[in-house]
Amino acid sequence: MFVKYQEPEVMRDPIHDYIHISYQVIWDCINAKEFQRLRRIRQLGGSFQIFHTAEHSRFSHSVGVYEIVRRMIAEVKGLKEELSEYEQVTVMLAGLLHDIGHGPYSHVFETISHCSHERFTQRIILEDSEINAILKSAHPDLPKDVASVISYTHPNELLNQLVSGQLDADRMDYLLRDAYFTGTSYGRFDMEKVLRAMTIKQHRLVVKESGIYAVENYIMARYHMYWQIYYHPISRSFEAVLTLFFKRMQVLYQKDPANLSGTELFFPFLKAEEISIDDFFFMDESSVQYGFHVLTKSEDEILADLAGRLLNRHLFRYETLTESRIPMIKKELAEKGLDPDYYCYFDRAIQKPYQPYRSENGHNIWVWKADGSIVELSQVSSIVHAIAKADIKENRLLFYP
Amino acid sequence: MFVKYQEPEVMRDPIHDYIHISYQVIWDCINAKEFQRLRRIRQLGGSFQIFHTAEHSRFSHSVGVYEIVRRMIAEVKGLKEELSEYEQVTVMLAGLLHDIGHGPYSHVFETISHCSHERFTQRIILEDSEINAILKSAHPDLPKDVASVISYTHPNELLNQLVSGQLDADRMDYLLRDAYFTGTSYGRFDMEKVLRAMTIKQHRLVVKESGIYAVENYIMARYHMYWQIYYHPISRSFEAVLTLFFKRMQVLYQKDPANLSGTELFFPFLKAEEISIDDFFFMDESSVQYGFHVLTKSEDEILADLAGRLLNRHLFRYETLTESRIPMIKKELAEKGLDPDYYCYFDRAIQKPYQPYRSENGHNIWVWKADGSIVELSQVSSIVHAIAKADIKENRLLFYP
Amino acid sequence: MFVKYQEPEVMRDPIHDYIHISYQVIWDCINAKEFQRLRRIRQLGGSFQIFHTAEHSRFSHSVGVYEIVRRMIAEVKGLKEELSEYEQVTVMLAGLLHDIGHGPYSHVFETISHCSHERFTQRIILEDSEINAILKSAHPDLPKDVASVISYTHPNELLNQLVSGQLDADRMDYLLRDAYFTGTSYGRFDMEKVLRAMTIKQHRLVVKESGIYAVENYIMARYHMYWQIYYHPISRSFEAVLTLFFKRMQVLYQKDPANLSGTELFFPFLKAEEISIDDFFFMDESSVQYGFHVLTKSEDEILADLAGRLLNRHLFRYETLTESRIPMIKKELAEKGLDPDYYCYFDRAIQKPYQPYRSENGHNIWVWKADGSIVELSQVSSIVHAIAKADIKENRLLFYP
Amino acid sequence: MFVKYQEPEVMRDPIHDYIHISYQVIWDCINAKEFQRLRRIRQLGGSFQIFHTAEHSRFSHSVGVYEIVRRMIAEVKGLKEELSEYEQVTVMLAGLLHDIGHGPYSHVFETISHCSHERFTQRIILEDSEINAILKSAHPDLPKDVASVISYTHPNELLNQLVSGQLDADRMDYLLRDAYFTGTSYGRFDMEKVLRAMTIKQHRLVVKESGIYAVENYIMARYHMYWQIYYHPISRSFEAVLTLFFKRMQVLYQKDPANLSGTELFFPFLKAEEISIDDFFFMDESSVQYGFHVLTKSEDEILADLAGRLLNRHLFRYETLTESRIPMIKKELAEKGLDPDYYCYFDRAIQKPYQPYRSENGHNIWVWKADGSIVELSQVSSIVHAIAKADIKENRLLFYP
Repeated sequence: MFVKYQEPEVMRDPIHDYIHISYQVIWDCINAKEFQRLRRIRQLGGSFQIFHTAEHSRFSHSVGVYEIVRRMIAEVKGLKEELSEYEQVTVMLAGLLHDIGHGPYSHVFETISHCSHERFTQRIILEDSEINAILKSAHPDLPKDVASVISYTHPNELLNQLVSGQLDADRMDYLLRDAYFTGTSYGRFDMEKVLRAMTIKQHRLVVKESGIYAVENYIMARYHMYWQIYYHPISRSFEAVLTLFFKRMQVLYQKDPANLSGTELFFPFLKAEEISIDDFFFMDESSVQYGFHVLTKSEDEILADLAGRLLNRHLFRYETLTESRIPMIKKELAEKGLDPDYYCYFDRAIQKPYQPYRSENGHNIWVWKADGSIVELSQVSSIVHAIAKADIKENRLLFYP
Repeated sequence: MFVKYQEPEVMRDPIHDYIHISYQVIWDCINAKEFQRLRRIRQLGGSFQIFHTAEHSRFSHSVGVYEIVRRMIAEVKGLKEELSEYEQVTVMLAGLLHDIGHGPYSHVFETISHCSHERFTQRIILEDSEINAILKSAHPDLPKDVASVISYTHPNELLNQLVSGQLDADRMDYLLRDAYFTGTSYGRFDMEKVLRAMTIKQHRLVVKESGIYAVENYIMARYHMYWQIYYHPISRSFEAVLTLFFKRMQVLYQKDPANLSGTELFFPFLKAEEISIDDFFFMDESSVQYGFHVLTKSEDEILADLAGRLLNRHLFRYETLTESRIPMIKKELAEKGLDPDYYCYFDRAIQKPYQPYRSENGHNIWVWKADGSIVELSQVSSIVHAIAKADIKENRLLFYP
Repeated sequence: MFVKYQEPEVMRDPIHDYIHISYQVIWDCINAKEFQRLRRIRQLGGSFQIFHTAEHSRFSHSVGVYEIVRRMIAEVKGLKEELSEYEQVTVMLAGLLHDIGHGPYSHVFETISHCSHERFTQRIILEDSEINAILKSAHPDLPKDVASVISYTHPNELLNQLVSGQLDADRMDYLLRDAYFTGTSYGRFDMEKVLRAMTIKQHRLVVKESGIYAVENYIMARYHMYWQIYYHPISRSFEAVLTLFFKRMQVLYQKDPANLSGTELFFPFLKAEEISIDDFFFMDESSVQYGFHVLTKSEDEILADLAGRLLNRHLFRYETLTESRIPMIKKELAEKGLDPDYYCYFDRAIQKPYQPYRSENGHNIWVWKADGSIVELSQVSSIVHAIAKADIKENRLLFYP
Repeated sequence: MFVKYQEPEVMRDPIHDYIHISYQVIWDCINAKEFQRLRRIRQLGGSFQIFHTAEHSRFSHSVGVYEIVRRMIAEVKGLKEELSEYEQVTVMLAGLLHDIGHGPYSHVFETISHCSHERFTQRIILEDSEINAILKSAHPDLPKDVASVISYTHPNELLNQLVSGQLDADRMDYLLRDAYFTGTSYGRFDMEKVLRAMTIKQHRLVVKESGIYAVENYIMARYHMYWQIYYHPISRSFEAVLTLFFKRMQVLYQKDPANLSGTELFFPFLKAEEISIDDFFFMDESSVQYGFHVLTKSEDEILADLAGRLLNRHLFRYETLTESRIPMIKKELAEKGLDPDYYCYFDRAIQKPYQPYRSENGHNIWVWKADGSIVELSQVSSIVHAIAKADIKENRLLFYP
C-alpha cells in the first residue's frame, strides 16, 4: 500500500542506536519544513539553564518516539497481527508527529499566546502544510487518521494507547532521552525489559505479570524525573521571567505596537486573533532569542531588563511560597524601584507518578495475570498501590530578583 | 600512626574505576590468604545458574566496600573531621573484611554447618590467622576494634553506620556490582548523588533533604534487586537441591563415614563440632564443586543423582506453594521411585525495601531537613512512607524434579 | 590570593559527572554575558544536520575543558607543585575561556567575516567586556596572562601545554563530548588512564611509558572522529551552502544595503571593517537562523532559495571531486537556471591523527621512558610511528544541488 | 528441518542484552554436561590475578559467540539467502561449541598435557558425549559438519569465515566481553556499526568501504587488549608458576605416583597416554584449585610451596629478559635454597594486530569498494597498512621469586 525502501534509511541516535525508516511517507515527513522546524525547539525548554547539556531538540525526541512505535509493532507479541499495514503506518506517523505543534518554551508560550500545542498539531496535520500534502498524497485519509490517534480519538483504542497511554512510546522516549542529555540517571529504566513484558490480550496492550518490576521501575523513573528535572526551581525561574517578559510585551503592544519596533514578526502572537500556520512556522527558539537581543535595547526599561535577564541568565531567586511574605517582598521590590507586577511571580507544581482511573492522565496500565485475568497495575503492585494512595505532592515557589 | 604509601596501590574495577589503597595494613590484608580465599566464593552463590555472568566473587565486592568507605571518609562533608586516623583505618578495614567469614553458597552452607558467616568473620579477625597477625602488628587493638565495627558494637556509632546502616558501603557496592555482573539495570542508582547528599550532623551520618530523591532511587533499586535477582526461583532451586545434597551427606556420614570416601576434607563440616579456622580455609566453592565431581560416582544413588544435578544444572522445577498439593506431589515422587525427603523442598522469601525502626534491618536512614531538624526518612518521603506501610510481600515456592 | 568558596559550586555534566568550581573569579566568568553567549553556538556547527543529536553548545565544552584542567592540577603527579596558585587559576581560566571568541558556524563565519576566533578570543579577554572586568578585578595581570596561555605564548610552557598541547584538556573534552552527543563510540578513550599516565618531568608534562597504550587509543579516537564526524560530507554540504549564502549577502550588500532590509544587525559583518565587541556579541546561531527566516522572503531569488535550504535542510548533494566533471556540472546547472557561482562548491579535508615536530599541530607528546629519558611519542609507539609516516589522507568533494 | 520453539528461550547477558535461542538442538547443547562444564573454566585463565573481576567463564563467551553468529545471519544483508537452514544451524552450533575442548588455564594446560583444545573440541563433538548424541539425533551429519566449521575445513568457506575469520563472531565477543569484565575500555568497538558494514559479495563476507573506520577501530581494540590484558605480566607470572607446578607434578609422578596421593584424579593427565573424554570432563578449574589445596600439604617442599603460591597469589616478580642476568639470578636463587629449575622461568609474547596473507592468522578481511572491486583491508586502510608493515612487537620476560 505504501512505498517501502529496499534498504531502510537510518539515523544514528544515542538512545536507540539507530532510527530505522522503511516507509517513504515517513522519510518525507521528516524532511518537511514543519518537522525540520522542531530542530529549533528544545525538548526541555528552559531546563538548559540548570542542566547545561539539556540542549536537545524536539526533533530528536520525535524521531525517537517514532522508533519506539516501530519497535513495538515489530517486537510486541501479537501486535503486528492486530494491525493492518495502513494502521501500522498511521500509528508510526502519529508517534513521529505528535509534538509538531509545539512552540518555543512551550508551556509559557501556550499561556501567553492562547494557542495550545495540541491545537497546532492538529492544524499542521489537517490544514495547508507540507506535512499535510505529504500525508494526503500517500493516502487521502491519512491526515485525519493520524490526527485522531494523536488526539486519542481513533476508534481502534490500541493505536491511541501506543502513542499516549500511561506506558507509551512518548513517555518512554522522553524519560530515557532527557536522562541522557541532562546527564542524570533518574530517568533510566529498562526499556528492553518493558518491551519484552508487553503483549496483546483482548485487543489491548497489556503487561505480563512477570514484567511488573520493569514497569514499577519505569514509574519511579517518571516520578524522579519530574521532581529532579522537569520541576527544577531554576527552570521554573526562567519560565517565570519569560512569562513576565511576554506579559510586558503584550501590554506595550496594546498601548502602541511602535514600542516593539524591530520585532514585527512577533506581532501575530501579541494580537488576540488566531495565528496562521505561516506565522507559527516562524516562531521558534531562535526567533525568540533574537527577540531578546533586540529588546535588550528597548526604550522600555522593564522590557529591556527582562530581555537581558533571559539572554544572559540573570534569573530570579526563589523560595517556598509563604503567603504572608508576599506583601513584604512586594514592598521591598517597590523600594528598589522594581514594579512588582513584573518582578514577582509564583507558581506551583504537582505530580503523582501514576494515577489509575483518572482520565486526565490517559489510559491505565493493564496487567495480564498468570491466571488469565486482566487487572489495573496498582491492584497487583504494592509499590504502585502505595504510591497511588500517597498524598499528592505539591511544590509552590515564589520568584523575585 | 599507620604506614602509608607515597604512591597508592591501585586496582582496576568496573564499578569504581579504580580502588585506591594507601595504607600498608590494608594492602597486606588484601594479600592475606584468608582474603585471597574470597576469590573462590561467588558473591551471588547459585545465581549464576540463571544469570550466567553472575560469576563475580566476594573478593571483588569486599574491595568495593572498602573503596566506598574510603570515598565516604574523603568526600562526605564533616566526616573526616569526626574520625581520628586510627578510626578511619579501622572502619576501612571493617569494610574490607566484613564478609571474610562467608563459606561457599553461604546461605545453604550456614544452615547445614551451623556456623554463621558472622561468627567466622569474628573468629578470623580475632583468632589465629594471617589477617589477625597483620592487624595486630599494625596496632594491638585493631583486631578487636575492626571486629566490633563489623558486629555493630563499636562505641562510635558512626563507624557502624558506615559499614552497615541502611545506606551503607556494603549495600551500595553490592547493588551496583550485582547489577553490573548480572547485566540488569535494576540495581543502578546514582551513588555519586547519594555520596554528595550525605553529611554529618550531631555526629550522625544524615542525608540532606535535597538528596532524598537519590535515596528513594536507591531503595527502589534494592527492592527490585531482591525480587528480580536475589530471590529468583532458579537460584532458589539450586539452593534447594544443594540443601538436600548436604542433608544426604550428613545422613550417610552419620551411618558410616566410609560412605563418603574420597571427600574426607568435608568431614569436619559434617561433624557436630565447631570447625577450625584451617578447615574453614579449605572450604570454598572449588572444593565443593570438586565434591560434586567425586560424589557423582557415589554408590548411594540419591547422593550421586543430586551431585550430578548440581554439577550439570539439572535443577528442580518450581511452583507456588499450595499446601494441598504437597501430598499429591509426594505420592507422584514415590511412584517414580524418588524419596520425597530428598526430592521435595519448599522455601519462602520475604522482603521489604525499607523498614524504619526495626533493629533487625539495621539503622534507620536519617534526613537533615532544611529547618535543621533530623527525621527518619519515611517521615519526609511519601514514596518511602507508602512502601514502609505496604503489606509485606512473601513468595513461597515448592521445588521438585 | 583569590576568593575561594567554602563549598564549591557544582554543575551536572554527562561527561565529567560534575564540574566543580571553587574560585569566585571562575564562577563569575561563567556568569558573564560573553560566556553565556556560548550557549547559543553549537560545538559542532552544522554536524547536527547529519547527527541529529549533535546539538550541544560551546558552553558545555568550555566548562568541560575547565574541569579537565582542574583535575589535571589536582591529580597529575607533580603538577600542583610546579604551579603557584596564581598560575593554577590562570590556566583554569584559559581552559574555560579558550573558545570565547567563536562565532556561529565558526569555520564558515571566519572565512566570510575575516575575523578569526583566535583574534576575538584575545579581544574579549583584553578589551572592554564583562569578562575583562571580572578578570581585572581579581588581579590586574590576569587578562594578559590568561590571553597569553590561550595564544601559547605564556613563558611557562607547561601552562600552554595543558590547554593546547597535542594531549590537552581541549582535545580530551571535545572527543569525549562529541562522541557522547553524536551517539558514536569513535571518540571514546580512557581519560582516567590518560590522566593517570601523565606526570611532570623536567618541568614538562610527559606520559609514563606504561601509559602509551592509553595515548595510542586517544590518537586513534581523534583520527576516527575527524573522518566520521568532523569531516562528514553532509556537515560539509551544510557549510558549502552557508558559504555561498554569505557570499551572496556580501554581493547584494555591496550593490545596495537596502537589498537586505530587515537584517540590519548583520551589516557590521558585511562591511570590510573590524567589528566591535558589541556587534560580535549579537552574532550567534539564533541570530543567523533568524536571518534565514527573514531572507527566505528576500526578493533576490538566489538568496531566498539558499536561506530556505539552510533553514529546511535542503542541502546539496556531493561527489568526489573529479576536475573534468566540473564544466559539465556547471553546464547542467546553467541549463536548470542555477547560477554556478552560487550552486557549485568544492572543498577538501586533510587530516593526520598525529604529526610530531610540526609546529602547526601544537606541541609534541613526550614519553618518559623507564630508563629516565624523555622521547617523542612516535619513537616508542610503533603504531604512532606507522601513522605518522603514512601518507596524508585527503578528501576532496564537489557539492551542487 | 529442525525443531523450533514458538517463543524463543532467552538468557540475559550484559554484552548482548539477551541471547535468543529458537532451535531446540541449540538449547539442548547448552544444557549438555560438557557445555555446562565451561562454567567452571574462566575465559581469561589467570588474568583475574591482576584484573580481579576477570572471573567470567568460557560458558558466557560461548553463548555470546552463538548470539553474534545468529545476529549475523539475521542482519548481514545477503547472508541468510546464501545459507540453507541446515547450514544456518550448523554455523550457529559451531559458534556455540568452538571452545568446548578448553581445559583449565588452557594455555598452560595444553603445554603440559600435550592435548590441544582444538583436538578435544573435535573429540567431544565427534566421539561419545552428550553433545555428540544431541547433534546426531537432530541430524546424523551434524557432528561432522559442525566439527568441520570449527576446524575451518567446511567446504562452504563462508561458514568458516563467520566463526573464525579475522573479523569473526569469536573475536568480536571476546573483545567486548573481556573489556566489560576487566573494566577496561580498550576492547570496546562499535559492533553495531561493524555488523551494519558487513555484506555478502561473491559468496564472501566483505566489509563495505564506508565501514572501514569501524573495522580499524576493531583492529586497534584487539591490539590494545593483547598488550594491556592478555599479555599482562602478572597473568603471565601466574602461568609461569603454574607451568613449573605441573612440571614438578610430572617429575614426582614419574618417580612414584604415591608422591601425589590424594590427587589421583589428576593422574590421567600426568601419564603420557591420551586422555579419555570422561577424564577430561573432570578436569576444570575447580578440580585444579582443589589440587592446590591438597598439595599445599605435600611432603615435597617445592610442590607444596608452588601450590601455596598459586592458591594464595604469591606470584613471581618479573623483569625484562636480559640473557646476561640469568646466571646471576640462578646463583642467587641457589643461595636462597631455591632450585632454579622450579623458580625461574622466561617467556615471550608477540602480537601484531592484523596480518594479511598469513594463514596462521586466519582469513583476511575483505573490503568491497564503491567501484565493485574486492580488496584486502590493508590496501585501502592506510592505518592498517601502516600497522601491518610495522615491526613485530615482542615482549620477553623473566620470572622468579
